[in-house]
Amino acid sequence: MPGASQSRGEFGLIARFFSKLDKGPDVVLGNGDDAAILRLAPGEEFAVSVDSMLEGVHFPKASPPEDLAYRAVAAAVSDLAAMGARPVAMTLALSLPDADEDWLTRLRSGLADAVTDFSLPLIGGDLTRGPLTLSVQVMGAVPTGMALKRSGASAGDLLYVSGCLGDSAAGLAIIEERIEAPEDVAGLVCSRFWRPKPALELGVLLRGIATAAVDVSDGLLADVGHIARASEVCMVVDSALVPLSPALAKVVSPEQALAWALRGGEDYQLCFTLPKDVTPPEGCTRIGRVETGSGVRCDVTGASDGYRHF
Amino acid sequence: MPGASQSRGEFGLIARFFSKLDKGPDVVLGNGDDAAILRLAPGEEFAVSVDSMLEGVHFPKASPPEDLAYRAVAAAVSDLAAMGARPVAMTLALSLPDADEDWLTRLRSGLADAVTDFSLPLIGGDLTRGPLTLSVQVMGAVPTGMALKRSGASAGDLLYVSGCLGDSAAGLAIIEERIEAPEDVAGLVCSRFWRPKPALELGVLLRGIATAAVDVSDGLLADVGHIARASEVCMVVDSALVPLSPALAKVVSPEQALAWALRGGEDYQLCFTLPKDVTPPEGCTRIGRVETGSGVRCDVTGASDGYRHF
Repeated sequence: MPGASQSRGEFGLIARFFSKLDKGPDVVLGNGDDAAILRLAPGEEFAVSVDSMLEGVHFPKASPPEDLAYRAVAAAVSDLAAMGARPVAMTLALSLPDADEDWLTRLRSGLADAVTDFSLPLIGGDLTRGPLTLSVQVMGAVPTGMALKRSGASAGDLLYVSGCLGDSAAGLAIIEERIEAPEDVAGLVCSRFWRPKPALELGVLLRGIATAAVDVSDGLLADVGHIARASEVCMVVDSALVPLSPALAKVVSPEQALAWALRGGEDYQLCFTLPKDVTPPEGCTRIGRVETGSGVRCDVTGASDGYRHF
Repeated sequence: MPGASQSRGEFGLIARFFSKLDKGPDVVLGNGDDAAILRLAPGEEFAVSVDSMLEGVHFPKASPPEDLAYRAVAAAVSDLAAMGARPVAMTLALSLPDADEDWLTRLRSGLADAVTDFSLPLIGGDLTRGPLTLSVQVMGAVPTGMALKRSGASAGDLLYVSGCLGDSAAGLAIIEERIEAPEDVAGLVCSRFWRPKPALELGVLLRGIATAAVDVSDGLLADVGHIARASEVCMVVDSALVPLSPALAKVVSPEQALAWALRGGEDYQLCFTLPKDVTPPEGCTRIGRVETGSGVRCDVTGASDGYRHF
């Protein structure tokens, strides 16, 4: 059929722009056969997740290709971090409206950065003609039975988040020219949007310690809600404790900063619960607690605010 | 960002139409967490492949959703068959222009058929709004070191194909109303297009026997070319030996039938090489041989035709 013969021409593009990124310790057979072959260490399980990003929906039109490639991979890798998995390999299903050589070279450069930064060889994929879409499937490994789930939180546990929140949403607002910011601040928060750093090391540290974990992709309150549903508990977030970056304070009002931190999403930090007596890893902030019940409650317990239902 | 909040609404659709297909012997944790978890038997490796199908390119517009879902999965599964892998699980990245309930119900029904027929639980995926595209990533398992590759054919081996070829291309021609056919024949060849049966059992049988294997997806000559390149040999196809289905003979001229068998593709049979002294499994036909050199040569050695370079 027309598409089948059309796809012949894509072999050349794949060979030119997407090959030779497939080497890694777990890769037995990389690109170029009907399937790639991966071999894990004995006693490891496989963690699998897929994440699609569509132009105009998940990133603005005319985005820098190197950055959107990096971001698409980072977003998917963050799901591995949230499982406590180490990265093994990825595949990419790429849909492209056209095949401009300079654009593809830049896309490859961003992919190559991600392959290196996350130790995540690109072992397969396909290329179709269509609206710009990147579907990244990531595969990781975790020792048998040690994967972090959303379902283990119980009343009395404390709720933590890594890093700080809201920068990614601020970065997007700058990219979309909805707000202005000094150059140094803009550079920092935009790089948080384009080049997020999934918390892979933290995920590994949390194995066997955290009772539940999720990555902050949909927005803190939404993601905490995933834990609440899966664990059948009530999650209480104290918004006064939510860590905002100093950069964010320079860009917008405290109210806007908090709104982005709570609902902006795509920060790709980890949000997790620990039993009360467990010391959290460095760089993590307690932002709430687990109670019996259901849903998410967001309180503000600042010095003077007292208690406010969100 | 807009898309992020838009994607909230997709949670409900995923829960309604794509859940509860995730049970399987290798699935430790199915849908609903940051990643799914799979556990193989000791001594098994992972085979991974991704295959995207786009409306208007890989299937006609306004195709029956149950059939296109089945076909998208079957095409991806065929890559597992070509590796000699047993199916383990799949993920689906689905892009949809809208979310008509009846259409989604039918799509799910085709997916569910594929999950059952191929023992391939659907353990994850995502849903974005866009042109209708299904990216299916399949994962399989194969005993360590036993995967069938494209690269092991050597001069003196014989070339075989399973089943018969050309029906899928004929089915598409009927669906697109380029040719007409009696109802029973049309039904048969159209089902070969929509509901191909990947040669999973044959793939397993060929482990440790076949020197090279590929599935017939791009078209026999193109796929044989993949073996030629990977194995650095010349593949000689004797077109008089290529098995055409009796149904095909009722629909078109012998010339058209042969053209479709050689170049139509998407039959999802297996094409493989065996050492001369190895008996092929039942249902397979010898169609050529491996010589030193490179590329693909297609000869016609029918009773009267003698020798013709294609």
